[in-house]
Amino acid sequence: MAHLIQVSQIRGQQFIKREMRFPSAMKWGPGNRGGGTIMLWEGRLLFRGVRYLSQHCTPRYQMIADLLKEEDFDLILLQEVYSEKDYLFLKRALSHCNPHSHYFKSGVIGSGLALFSKHKLLDVFLYRYSVNGFPYKAFHGDWFAGKAVGMVVVNIGGMVAHVYITHLHAEYSRENDAYLPHRVAQTWELVQFLRLTSAAADLIILGGDLNMHPSDLGIRLLRGYTGLVDCYHATQNFQGCPDGATYIPQNPFTSKSELETFPNGIRIDYILFKGSATLAAKCDSFSTTMGCVPGQPFPYSDHEALSAMLLAQRQQKKQEEEEAMASSELLANLIDTMNEARTEVKVGLHHVEGMRHTAMRMGIMGLALLLLEMLIALVPWLAVSTEQGFPRATFYLLGSLSLVTLVLTGVLYIFYSTQVKALHSTEEQMRLAVLRLQEQVTSRGPHSR
Amino acid sequence: MAHLIQVSQIRGQQFIKREMRFPSAMKWGPGNRGGGTIMLWEGRLLFRGVRYLSQHCTPRYQMIADLLKEEDFDLILLQEVYSEKDYLFLKRALSHCNPHSHYFKSGVIGSGLALFSKHKLLDVFLYRYSVNGFPYKAFHGDWFAGKAVGMVVVNIGGMVAHVYITHLHAEYSRENDAYLPHRVAQTWELVQFLRLTSAAADLIILGGDLNMHPSDLGIRLLRGYTGLVDCYHATQNFQGCPDGATYIPQNPFTSKSELETFPNGIRIDYILFKGSATLAAKCDSFSTTMGCVPGQPFPYSDHEALSAMLLAQRQQKKQEEEEAMASSELLANLIDTMNEARTEVKVGLHHVEGMRHTAMRMGIMGLALLLLEMLIALVPWLAVSTEQGFPRATFYLLGSLSLVTLVLTGVLYIFYSTQVKALHSTEEQMRLAVLRLQEQVTSRGPHSR
Repeated sequence: MAHLIQVSQIRGQQFIKREMRFPSAMKWGPGNRGGGTIMLWEGRLLFRGVRYLSQHCTPRYQMIADLLKEEDFDLILLQEVYSEKDYLFLKRALSHCNPHSHYFKSGVIGSGLALFSKHKLLDVFLYRYSVNGFPYKAFHGDWFAGKAVGMVVVNIGGMVAHVYITHLHAEYSRENDAYLPHRVAQTWELVQFLRLTSAAADLIILGGDLNMHPSDLGIRLLRGYTGLVDCYHATQNFQGCPDGATYIPQNPFTSKSELETFPNGIRIDYILFKGSATLAAKCDSFSTTMGCVPGQPFPYSDHEALSAMLLAQRQQKKQEEEEAMASSELLANLIDTMNEARTEVKVGLHHVEGMRHTAMRMGIMGLALLLLEMLIALVPWLAVSTEQGFPRATFYLLGSLSLVTLVLTGVLYIFYSTQVKALHSTEEQMRLAVLRLQEQVTSRGPHSR
Repeated sequence: MAHLIQVSQIRGQQFIKREMRFPSAMKWGPGNRGGGTIMLWEGRLLFRGVRYLSQHCTPRYQMIADLLKEEDFDLILLQEVYSEKDYLFLKRALSHCNPHSHYFKSGVIGSGLALFSKHKLLDVFLYRYSVNGFPYKAFHGDWFAGKAVGMVVVNIGGMVAHVYITHLHAEYSRENDAYLPHRVAQTWELVQFLRLTSAAADLIILGGDLNMHPSDLGIRLLRGYTGLVDCYHATQNFQGCPDGATYIPQNPFTSKSELETFPNGIRIDYILFKGSATLAAKCDSFSTTMGCVPGQPFPYSDHEALSAMLLAQRQQKKQEEEEAMASSELLANLIDTMNEARTEVKVGLHHVEGMRHTAMRMGIMGLALLLLEMLIALVPWLAVSTEQGFPRATFYLLGSLSLVTLVLTGVLYIFYSTQVKALHSTEEQMRLAVLRLQEQVTSRGPHSR
């Protein structure tokens, strides 16, 4: 059986948030080419910069390693393993049961994504999201992590599984979520990457901390456009927190104030999957951890970990059945979702364009001040030098200030420009996708199924 | 018949290099489901920042638009269209013959990639390379362009073609090429992106300015690992410059000094293609432009444009024939190439780690100087203020200098860290790939074909 465990801790302030969630592990009957079960574990671990601030970091990694060794997962997907040292610790600890692994490096700190597998990895690839918060919001830290989606191709007893692992931008405030356009743009890139790289897969699995509630725009976009199935909905055999919540007030590491309006916790971590024309997949069982760990003084992470058991069965190749299956109603819904997502990306674009404009104006002001100072400095020089009566300290301080302003606004202008380009690109891709969906609806006529 | 034209101009200095090459255009018998011909055009256009420095920019775009309207290409792939205004000009001009188009936005300036098609675009995606030169080498400009590979899925009369367009980092000095590790890392990402996104394709086409000679490491890696075929080698019907050169001394826009050792020019622009299990493709004819354009005072671009006509024919699905086809010798060659590429990436990694270290040391020095200054400023304050005898101008200048040093080295440290992570990631992916190739060789034994 599969388990899912996840631990994290928050000490009031965002920047010492420590998370420890486990990802997805799968168990699969080895050599069983006709079908079998896959055990999947999803969770996240801990913020690296915060390694020395993190509570009980070393014992928690030990606990996690012990548990993973005891259980026999096919696949383990981890997020927030921000320290390579911790990855190497787990790699050594799991070398017998999950000898194949990959650590996805990206950004300044690293994406924090790690994958362990019982089965050989055939291919590894990484797609970095084009927008991912702002570098000067250092306490939010997402930009420095270089968030990405990691992809691994695994051969599980003759079945080719494309396994994706990701961690989207955090939601720091639900009421006033400045990062919503970024998360929507990231979701779109995830959707496109997943769709375009999974054509050869028998089975597609996506596990990760998506930082979105089940009914949020991003989840609707992801499920609607890719056809991925949420394990929580797909199984009849669920054990865990009410509503499948993965961020619950009972966990001592979570922020109670964040969860005031959600007394049962929220579901923001997912395992999703999809079979193919050649392989039927279903979710046999699904579970979450429940905050505390019996016999241990603290949980594994701030997020509850997920575990899933998938059943897979070879089938005769279906002829493009899926494409024909989507009903007009579903298509119409998807178009609505896409339009909503486009609007959100446009809002973000507008916002970043505004900030770029501000940076440019600040830069021009800095430059003007600097030129003015140079002029003042030159004038008494040209005239007979009259040194006294001139507030030198203020003069040089202003000079330094204008210089620093100029450098910083220059860097910011460049940064905002890359964001403008990236969001434009996303919006353009979405526009094309809506166009194609609308054509599908039109070509079927109003009454076709 | 298909044509390829490409224009560019250099006025001695790198930063006013203006390029104008054409990409790939393909002609395909519409409605012909059994097979047909595809006409392909490859070239590049011009450096955007340089729009106002560029010679004859507006008339050259007009010349190109006239030519493209006259010819009847299925696909047109353009590089270095750095100004969106120019893209929109071409879009309007080609609205009748190539009504479908996409402009790939990325980086600060933009990737410069544009695609025009006679056939509907089904999907569009962009992958930004994780390393791409250095932002402070502003005259080289590659970093600001945000170089990427653009992907477009096109339905050409029932055949699904995955069309890729890219422009890799320029080679500014062949003897002392500081960007070689970057170009190799970019090639690897191109290879992986192409392989992993093309499983559903009937036909794969890659066109672009790869900035590599035919026998360079990157081209060997690209061809060896993807199985793509170079149009220049594949056709019996070639017309154009000797050796298929695309950067020739006869072109008035090229730098004569760069080509001193290559009197016949060099071949650095390519059209490559590959059929699939369901579709056999071959290159019927291939041509380059020859520098000057008859009846015009200047060529279209500094690079010669390429045009290809591909013939495609539906075939019975071959059962994983390709996989079995690669001989042990080919595999051994590929492993050598991969190892060479890994070494090159490691060299780049080592270099960037060194630069990160330097940035850190400079930053520490700046910080120490700033602290020292603050101490000096505070001491006479604490003691009875003795204002005279203190070189204030030097003092404040040093203060500004240390502050600016601190900010700049901070930004550089962050930048180098992202490069270290990205190159590590590439190296790790390559290591895995070599491992899998070696296993393939071993499993076949020494004498198997």
